[in-house]
Amino acid sequence: MRIALIGCGGVGKSFLKLVGEKNKNPINKELTINYIIGSKGGIYDDKGVNCLEVAKFLELNNKIYEYPHGGKREINFEYLMEKMDIDILIELTPTNKDTGEPAITYMRRVLKKRIHVVTGNKGPILLAYNELNTLASKNGVQLGIGCTTGGALPSINAGLIDMAGAEILSIEGILNGSTNFILREMAESKVEYPEALEKAQKLGIAETDPSLDVNGWDTASKLLILTNVLMGKDKKMEDITVEGITNLNVEDITTAIENGEKYKLIGMTQVKDGKHIMTVKPQRIKSDHPLYGVEGKNKAVKYTSDILGDLTVIGGASGTLPAAASIYRDIINIMRGYKFSNGN
Amino acid sequence: MRIALIGCGGVGKSFLKLVGEKNKNPINKELTINYIIGSKGGIYDDKGVNCLEVAKFLELNNKIYEYPHGGKREINFEYLMEKMDIDILIELTPTNKDTGEPAITYMRRVLKKRIHVVTGNKGPILLAYNELNTLASKNGVQLGIGCTTGGALPSINAGLIDMAGAEILSIEGILNGSTNFILREMAESKVEYPEALEKAQKLGIAETDPSLDVNGWDTASKLLILTNVLMGKDKKMEDITVEGITNLNVEDITTAIENGEKYKLIGMTQVKDGKHIMTVKPQRIKSDHPLYGVEGKNKAVKYTSDILGDLTVIGGASGTLPAAASIYRDIINIMRGYKFSNGN
Repeated sequence: MRIALIGCGGVGKSFLKLVGEKNKNPINKELTINYIIGSKGGIYDDKGVNCLEVAKFLELNNKIYEYPHGGKREINFEYLMEKMDIDILIELTPTNKDTGEPAITYMRRVLKKRIHVVTGNKGPILLAYNELNTLASKNGVQLGIGCTTGGALPSINAGLIDMAGAEILSIEGILNGSTNFILREMAESKVEYPEALEKAQKLGIAETDPSLDVNGWDTASKLLILTNVLMGKDKKMEDITVEGITNLNVEDITTAIENGEKYKLIGMTQVKDGKHIMTVKPQRIKSDHPLYGVEGKNKAVKYTSDILGDLTVIGGASGTLPAAASIYRDIINIMRGYKFSNGN
Repeated sequence: MRIALIGCGGVGKSFLKLVGEKNKNPINKELTINYIIGSKGGIYDDKGVNCLEVAKFLELNNKIYEYPHGGKREINFEYLMEKMDIDILIELTPTNKDTGEPAITYMRRVLKKRIHVVTGNKGPILLAYNELNTLASKNGVQLGIGCTTGGALPSINAGLIDMAGAEILSIEGILNGSTNFILREMAESKVEYPEALEKAQKLGIAETDPSLDVNGWDTASKLLILTNVLMGKDKKMEDITVEGITNLNVEDITTAIENGEKYKLIGMTQVKDGKHIMTVKPQRIKSDHPLYGVEGKNKAVKYTSDILGDLTVIGGASGTLPAAASIYRDIINIMRGYKFSNGN
């Protein structure tokens, strides 16, 4: 498999290191990175770059086009389009949730050339999943999106492959790590929201601008992708009723604990009278609920189904390495022949 | 896909009903059951049997060869071998854990004819997985065994597909439902083992001869399959140190609870000094352990890995329908092109 990597931020660099390490085992040698394309140039190597060497070079804050073996300013997406000598495009350009660009255009163009796409970019999947997936299907190639809904947590796989043949009747998940941390901090240290947020920020668990997480929008975007992919819908963000965690106070949380319950920020899709109702809000859950014990770096999702019962998956360590590993997982599963695009 | 079903007990009948229901949706019509082979005859229908009608016919304790549309005494495995006009064999004959026969012979013969096999039969997988899987791989077909390690619980899928690209470093699971029920009964009703067992037997949760379950051998056999398949080993039952739950008393269990812990029968494979150590024994686990809350009909397994972190899957409702649904899941994933046999 010949691979082009476009977008070389944190996850991209971790991906290079991961492939470099895995390729030390001769079995994995069939996977080569032939292009690494950044915003101002790239690297092309017909035989496959030395991933560990490139990763080391980039970690020293060198410019990608200055890499001595194949680095050039003119290596960009158009350069790749002209040669088109790859099997898979790994799309990791910065996310734009308003337009999905430039990623949507990149994906459209390569899918039409019968090249598989694996992405960790939520923007294009939120805005154009059905169009892109249909395009992949028509062209006999795959669109791997496992990284967009919880990184290493196999939320898409679990719904699509582990529930294959069954109909998914509901989705219920703890899909955002930083809010889960803040809620536990409020419960354990009995501090109000602003103080718990500050601690999360200090530890690098919450972002400087935490609004997407704490207002529930990150959870909502993952729930939207899961619902559209696994239930075959074409929902939009505005179809979701979203409430974050900022209105909770220590008293609420303490009262819940006294009743043997915990507050969790839950994203949920349920079918009522044939309609798919989607909500994100803090919910009190009991100790016999499979999401009750999901703490720390973990995320989780629970599916109910018609014939395979309930399934809960818990996992998904945060960080760029597990995110890169989820990209690698999609590649391996595509190499093993899996047709994601026939999933619905 | 043309399918032959050999072995038509509880799971086989549930499978017929399930396919009948699913085939009401035109999308699924590409899947036909062309053979149903029992111990004393069978049914052959070149166009595919009416699954719901056959299921109803068999539920009335009719003999399979008396079925008016294609039922005949002479339809057996040799009859199938002569025509060999199928894509998948569903192997559900009675389990023999000493010889694996007749299933091993059936599987060998059809795999050599480039026919996929999906089975729920632990015997041949315990005794001959590596041989059969190599045979499948050589002949470019798949061996689906998801049903053998917890039915609807996607324990094989989770390790093989959701952890694709990662190395599994340890396996830890609650793989037997009836012992999990008995331990909870001892904890909640504060009754000793014999009384708890009796209740489980009355409810049909434990078998009349419960020895395989309560002595840990059922857990051990599932652990053995998971270890050989997911860690690429060729272990035997005698490599596992097995202790059941019969020596536990209410005092042990109460002491654990007073310390915020629970006893669970855990099957575990760990790597120490490069050696795979396999044990089945009751273990006290803490409330922050992802297997702590696994109760009722659920089973669960936790994997740790090199690059994808930890993954716990909880699910696997007991019964013939979820078992049949796990057979159906393997078929759908084979239809979607997945190459299980290239997994290791």
